[in-house]
Amino acid sequence: MPSYKLYYFEARGAAELARLIMKQAGQDFEDIRINGVTEWPKKKLEIKPEMPLEALPVLEIDGKKFCQSIAIVHYLAREFGLMGSNNMEALVIEELLEIFTEITIKHLMKMYHEKDHEKKVDLMKTIKETVMPRYIAFIEERLKENNGGKGFYVGDKVSVADLALYNTMFNLKKSMGKEGQDPFEGSNLLNAFYERVASLPNIAAWEKARPQTDM
Amino acid sequence: MPSYKLYYFEARGAAELARLIMKQAGQDFEDIRINGVTEWPKKKLEIKPEMPLEALPVLEIDGKKFCQSIAIVHYLAREFGLMGSNNMEALVIEELLEIFTEITIKHLMKMYHEKDHEKKVDLMKTIKETVMPRYIAFIEERLKENNGGKGFYVGDKVSVADLALYNTMFNLKKSMGKEGQDPFEGSNLLNAFYERVASLPNIAAWEKARPQTDM
Repeated sequence: MPSYKLYYFEARGAAELARLIMKQAGQDFEDIRINGVTEWPKKKLEIKPEMPLEALPVLEIDGKKFCQSIAIVHYLAREFGLMGSNNMEALVIEELLEIFTEITIKHLMKMYHEKDHEKKVDLMKTIKETVMPRYIAFIEERLKENNGGKGFYVGDKVSVADLALYNTMFNLKKSMGKEGQDPFEGSNLLNAFYERVASLPNIAAWEKARPQTDM
Repeated sequence: MPSYKLYYFEARGAAELARLIMKQAGQDFEDIRINGVTEWPKKKLEIKPEMPLEALPVLEIDGKKFCQSIAIVHYLAREFGLMGSNNMEALVIEELLEIFTEITIKHLMKMYHEKDHEKKVDLMKTIKETVMPRYIAFIEERLKENNGGKGFYVGDKVSVADLALYNTMFNLKKSMGKEGQDPFEGSNLLNAFYERVASLPNIAAWEKARPQTDM
């Protein structure tokens, strides 16, 4: 069994899905968290020659480092049997992953980075009322295509698509919940799904044990 | 053998890599190109109920439509044996694909969309002198890790990583070449690689036969 080290900042961010995969799989890994302000500029000099493209997250597998968060997630998902059982299931899963990444990069990150409180609340309203309904309709439709939406996205067991939707919902609920907003409040289907994933023993244990961070 | 329809705009853009995969594999597909100005707003209404998230590209497989360009590329690459022969090779390939997408979205698209000629030329200089050297060093390093850089990125045959680098180099050379700039001019390794991929019979034939578009 190879040894894994995951390098990232003190955040869930672009590394949390890789952590969730390894936690769900019961795979040990070194969860290396670097402070972006006090440590990274210095570390960058120290580890520059070996850190691909000087960017995080990085996954080190038996001493060899790989960058790019999506490539890392897909690799780990395949390694631990969370990428479906055939190419069509993998397509269904990856289409969803790319949609969750799109929601995160185009909308959630914009909201995180907005410092002005009034503008931040305006962005939340746009996300809830304009952005998310279209995504939610599609995400629900794909869920209903398997087992009537009562289980997971493909087959009869959890996949990385399920972990990724749980993670995206967690982030949106947490950040927007502070202002009393929840873009998923109208979707019984997705809220039931969320509880189903959040209550998987390894996921529930990790949600409790992991460092509490804003993002 | 399933039937494939690829829906996109009149451009290489986010669909060309999917086209290159199918051309390299000798797979027939319907290459549906929609004019973004005159047709898409109308088509959007017509096909809205069946076009996932109202975005392109879309790949239709035996009548079922899937969105998200990266998921589509990965699916096709696996289907036609262009995703390496094991999970570690798939990781090497996907890490590169994600880097080429990053170069395209963060830098090439910005340059395409800049209307002011002087600012466009300034962006080209930044890409050539500041942005690309760091990427090129990494892209060359990974290439040298297999067969001393004399072949392809993994194993002894072409993969989607090779097609993607060829496509990214084509786009950068074409758009920046108009102003006499070439970010790859110092890299004999990558220029030799480019010729190797561009001269694959199916790729050379497609480069000649495909509709000539700016992007």
